[in-house]
Order: sequence, then structure tokens, then C-alpha cells
Amino acid sequence: MTKNSTIIFDTNTFSKLNSFLKKGKYSRLIVLADSNTINECYPILAKNCALIQKADILEIDAGEAIKTLDACKELWETLSEAQVDKNALLVNVGGGVITDIGGFVASVYKRGIDFIHIPTSLLAMADASVGGKCGVDLNSLKNQLGTITQPKAVFINTLFLNTLPQRQLANGVAEIIKMGLIADAKLVKAMQDNKTLLDTLIKRSVALKMAIVKKDPNDKSVRKILNFGHTIGHAIESYFLGTKDELLHGEAIAIGMFIESLIAFDKKMIKTNELQTIVDLIKPNYQVLEFSQEEEQKIMELMLHDKKNKNNKIRMSLINKIGSCKYDVEVNVSQIQKAFKTYHQIIGA
Amino acid sequence: MTKNSTIIFDTNTFSKLNSFLKKGKYSRLIVLADSNTINECYPILAKNCALIQKADILEIDAGEAIKTLDACKELWETLSEAQVDKNALLVNVGGGVITDIGGFVASVYKRGIDFIHIPTSLLAMADASVGGKCGVDLNSLKNQLGTITQPKAVFINTLFLNTLPQRQLANGVAEIIKMGLIADAKLVKAMQDNKTLLDTLIKRSVALKMAIVKKDPNDKSVRKILNFGHTIGHAIESYFLGTKDELLHGEAIAIGMFIESLIAFDKKMIKTNELQTIVDLIKPNYQVLEFSQEEEQKIMELMLHDKKNKNNKIRMSLINKIGSCKYDVEVNVSQIQKAFKTYHQIIGA
Repeated sequence: MTKNSTIIFDTNTFSKLNSFLKKGKYSRLIVLADSNTINECYPILAKNCALIQKADILEIDAGEAIKTLDACKELWETLSEAQVDKNALLVNVGGGVITDIGGFVASVYKRGIDFIHIPTSLLAMADASVGGKCGVDLNSLKNQLGTITQPKAVFINTLFLNTLPQRQLANGVAEIIKMGLIADAKLVKAMQDNKTLLDTLIKRSVALKMAIVKKDPNDKSVRKILNFGHTIGHAIESYFLGTKDELLHGEAIAIGMFIESLIAFDKKMIKTNELQTIVDLIKPNYQVLEFSQEEEQKIMELMLHDKKNKNNKIRMSLINKIGSCKYDVEVNVSQIQKAFKTYHQIIGA
Repeated sequence: MTKNSTIIFDTNTFSKLNSFLKKGKYSRLIVLADSNTINECYPILAKNCALIQKADILEIDAGEAIKTLDACKELWETLSEAQVDKNALLVNVGGGVITDIGGFVASVYKRGIDFIHIPTSLLAMADASVGGKCGVDLNSLKNQLGTITQPKAVFINTLFLNTLPQRQLANGVAEIIKMGLIADAKLVKAMQDNKTLLDTLIKRSVALKMAIVKKDPNDKSVRKILNFGHTIGHAIESYFLGTKDELLHGEAIAIGMFIESLIAFDKKMIKTNELQTIVDLIKPNYQVLEFSQEEEQKIMELMLHDKKNKNNKIRMSLINKIGSCKYDVEVNVSQIQKAFKTYHQIIGA
């Protein structure tokens, strides 16, 4: 973790952003945004932060499908043709796709230029913008290419959430649920009670994540617990990528957490009442899909590409109680198949 | 600089490599080599290191032209299709092109897998394999994309130099001359006397580079002195890339050091006798090309893409005496033009 990565999270975000840009003396500011955030968020930003108005703008298509190496190549060529130098700053304005692709583009261009994130989705605020992981998909395998490079700063302003539809909010809540399940039973309780302000939940989620990342910035040990729900979740997300049933990241992770919790339960890592808590948090709030035998098989094959695997054995991060998680737990194919079966029974498929 | 990057440089390299591989418990070993090193060097390596025989082999074309993002994409797809996991080791066997592209491929695949370098050219032994810079060219602009990621270890065995033609040796000597000019007057003297063993020169060059890289791993300050000769040298190299007059990296850098020394002389940073020493080291040993007005213009345009530039001003690392170098020296276009003119006069064009 570089010493320079700061999270700015208060009502004063925009003036702090302006000070940051002033102090940085960058040779050039370049805003990366997608077709949605350019219309919905950039105007708010430009209105409130004078220096952002001087930035060049790079616009890319919205959606996960743009997270490809080819899109990066186009961005690198554009930067290179515009003679953007090593002292420029890339300002990533958007959701998780923008922070993922923008961080990667910046970390590789001329062997690395500075970048900051201004997350505009709940998912990006609570999770994706923090921790330095960035990357793109390779032939629909999620985040196969990337680096771990810390942004210089992250500016979180929940004002942008006003522009988000309900489905996008639920998408972000999934990662906050995850954070509670792996690291903070109190956060889970707060979400069950449903009385806590979203701002507070985001702040808690970011603080928990930062503490874990600080302990293990390069993802060699404890950081892996952040992958709870993601082994199965990523495979499900990859499977539907580009189809009419495409899922948002958090939607796939919600199902992933559901099925992985069933594996943890089967391995006697969690008790019945704990499993019930998880099902109650997920089942009413997310579309719990039914998978055909063939789909299940394809999802299983995608899991073999998971970055956590070693020696072709599937390894997961599984909770061992609410608020605690183990990593590098080996799971075999029949355990996963059994969990899918139980999942289908519970959702009544 | 990661704590784990070690340089192994002795007669015992191969058995040390074997111990390293044994100790590493990697899930898989993958050798990256080019069509030349696969024939000339891999057999020597496999004969002397039992564990290397079990490695999978990735072969790419020889030459700078392969240092592209498209070549990386193919390698990433191959790794991904073969389900190579995060605990694999990439073993880069070859010259500077292989260590550059191999380091980059490893540092980005699944957000980074371990890699080691086994340099087989003098250039790679004395320079490219050490320091963690890696990358590829973008539309013939040198090293526009890359990361700074330290190899786990570098195994230097001069046995491989026996397979190298004279032109390749001179190519590597250029970077050793550079190292002397920027950091060690004694090394320059040793090269003038021409009595020192190549092994000793490599060892000294590597030690000097490691010391500089350690002070500034991320290339923000003193590491930039390693770019002496490279602002003009890279532009010349880029200009001829893919043409019938394609130059080796060291050949371009030799001319680059020649012309940049003329700029340093013009700026009164070095004296006549120092300039003479440099000309005497370079002129008899390298093909000192003549450039037409049009070529000079094109080379100048390429210089505007140099990674050291800031606010569209050309910045160079220039020596201020033999064995000492300043970085971030601003140089204007007319100073460069004047140096090209003097260069043409000295080479008698």
C-alpha cells in the first residue's frame, strides 16, 4: 500500500478535490468516464470543482463489456497520440468498471501515471474504488489481467447516488453485506435492522476494507477473505456476460455468497441460524436464479480459471462465523454440486 | 524494490537455479524463450538444471518487433487456456526483448505471478534483466506500456555469451559504457584500457545499477540518470524499427550518448577532453550513422513522446563529468539540432 493513498469522505469532497488537483501540479488532467456518468455525474463534478473543467475527457461505453484489453489499447493510443506525459493525472469518474479499467490504463501507461477515483455507484464507493485492484477481462474471464496499484486518492460523495436506479443500489449493497459477513457481525446486524443510513454503511465498509488491504496489500494472505462469494459469483457473472440475462456484479456475488455459505454450512463451518441470517439477507433482495444442469456445468468450468486456485484445485474464502472468514479453503467439485442442489431446494426451484 | 529480488552471478548458477525452483514449490514452471534462445540456450539450461526440463515452453519470434501488446495478448490467452494459476513461475530465457515482454506478461497476468530472468545476451545481463522495468512498444514507440515489477531472481551465467555474435556483444557493451559514464569513472578507464574481463565489467555494471535502483525504485528521481543516451537513442531506435536499417538497442544508445554528450558539452557540463574520451569509446566501435534532414526531423518528433518529458518540454539525463550525471535537464529543439550538426561534422559526414 503506498503511503499516498487517501480516502476523502465528507460533505466537503469537491473543494478537497480542487485543493488536491491544485497541489498536484499535474501537467494535464484527463477525466475517464462512461456514456452514463458523462451525462449524469460529470456536470455535477464540473459545476463544483473548477479545475475539473479544464480536463480533457475520455469517454467509453457503459457496461462490463468494455472491460477488455482492446478498449485499453484504444485508450493508450489516444493518450499517446495526445502526447500525454508521465506527469499527467487520470481522473476516473464512474462505477466499478471505470475504476477497474481506469486504474489499469493508468498503472501501465508509460509504466504508470498517477490516478484518482471518483466513484459514482454504490458498488464503487463501498468496494471497487478502494484497495488498488484494477484490471480487465480476457475472453469473458473476469479480471484475468490487471495490477494492484493504489490510487493517489479516492473522493467519495454520496450525492451521486441520487442518480442511481434501485437495481444499482442493491448491486452495491451486496458488497457491504459481504464485508459484514467476513469481518463485522455488527455491520450485519445494522443491515438486518435496516435503520442505518447508507452513508454510515459505506464508511464502515471502506474502513474495514482498508484495514484488511493494509495488512496484505498484495493479496498473498488475509486480503483473500474479500473474495468470499466471488469464486462462484465471478463464474456466474462470467457465464451471463454479454447475454440478455447479464447480471450486475453484486447480483452475481449475492448468489455466490448464498451458495458458498451452503458449502461452509456443509463443512460445518457455520451453524443453521447463521445460514438462515445469510439467506434472509440475500433471498428477498436479489433475483435468485435457477440454473439448469448444463449451466451449472459451464459455471463449474469457469471456476477452474479462478485466480485463487492452486494446482487445479478450487480454493475458496469461506466464512466460519458471521463476521469471520477463512481463505484458501479447498473445495471439491462434489461439494459445489451438492451446494447448488441445496440452493435450488431453498429457492424452491 | 521488493526484498525478494536477488541477483545470482557465479559459476554455480545452474545448481542455484535448481535449488530456487525446488524451494519455490511453484504449481507450474513456464519457460518463455524466442526462436533463437530456444535453440541456442534452452538446451544448455535443460542439460544443467533438471527441474527446467519439466517446464512448459512458450516460444515467440526473435527480435524487437514482437514487443507488442498483441503478442502479450496471445501469451495471456495461452496461459489462460492452459489454466496456469497464480502460483506458477514464468522463467524468461533470452535477451532484453524477452525479459521486457516476459516481465510485463507476468506482472499483469492474474494481477501478477512470480517471474525470474535468465539473461542470455550481454545487454540483458549487464542491464535489461536488472531493475524491474518491463514493457512493450505501442505503435513503434518504445516501452510506452509496462510496469516496474522486480523479478524474484536473476540468474546470470556468461556461458551463454559464447553463442553470441560480435554485433550482439557490442550491443551490450554500450550499456556498460553508459553505466561508467553516468556513475563510475574507474569503469570507463577499465574499458579504455581494454584489459578487464567481460565478467568483471558485467558484475560492476549490475552492482552500479542495483545501487541506483535501490535508491529510487519507481523512477521518480536519481534512477532517471540511467536514461543517459536514451532520449535521442530511443527515438533513433524507434525510427529505424521494422526497416532494413533496424538497429540493436545498444547501437542506437551509442549514437544517443554521442549526440547527448555534444549537448552536455555545448551546455558546458563537460570539458573537451571528456568529450574526446566519449567519442573515442563510441566512434570506432559502433556504426555512426548519418541522418538526412528529413530523418532528423522525424527523430525529433519521436522525442516528443519520451516518457521523461513534462509539459511538452524535452528533458534529458546529461553527464556533468565522466562518472556523474544530472537528470531532468531541459533541452530545447535548437540545442538538439546544433548537436546533430556537430555530430555530423565529427563523423565526417
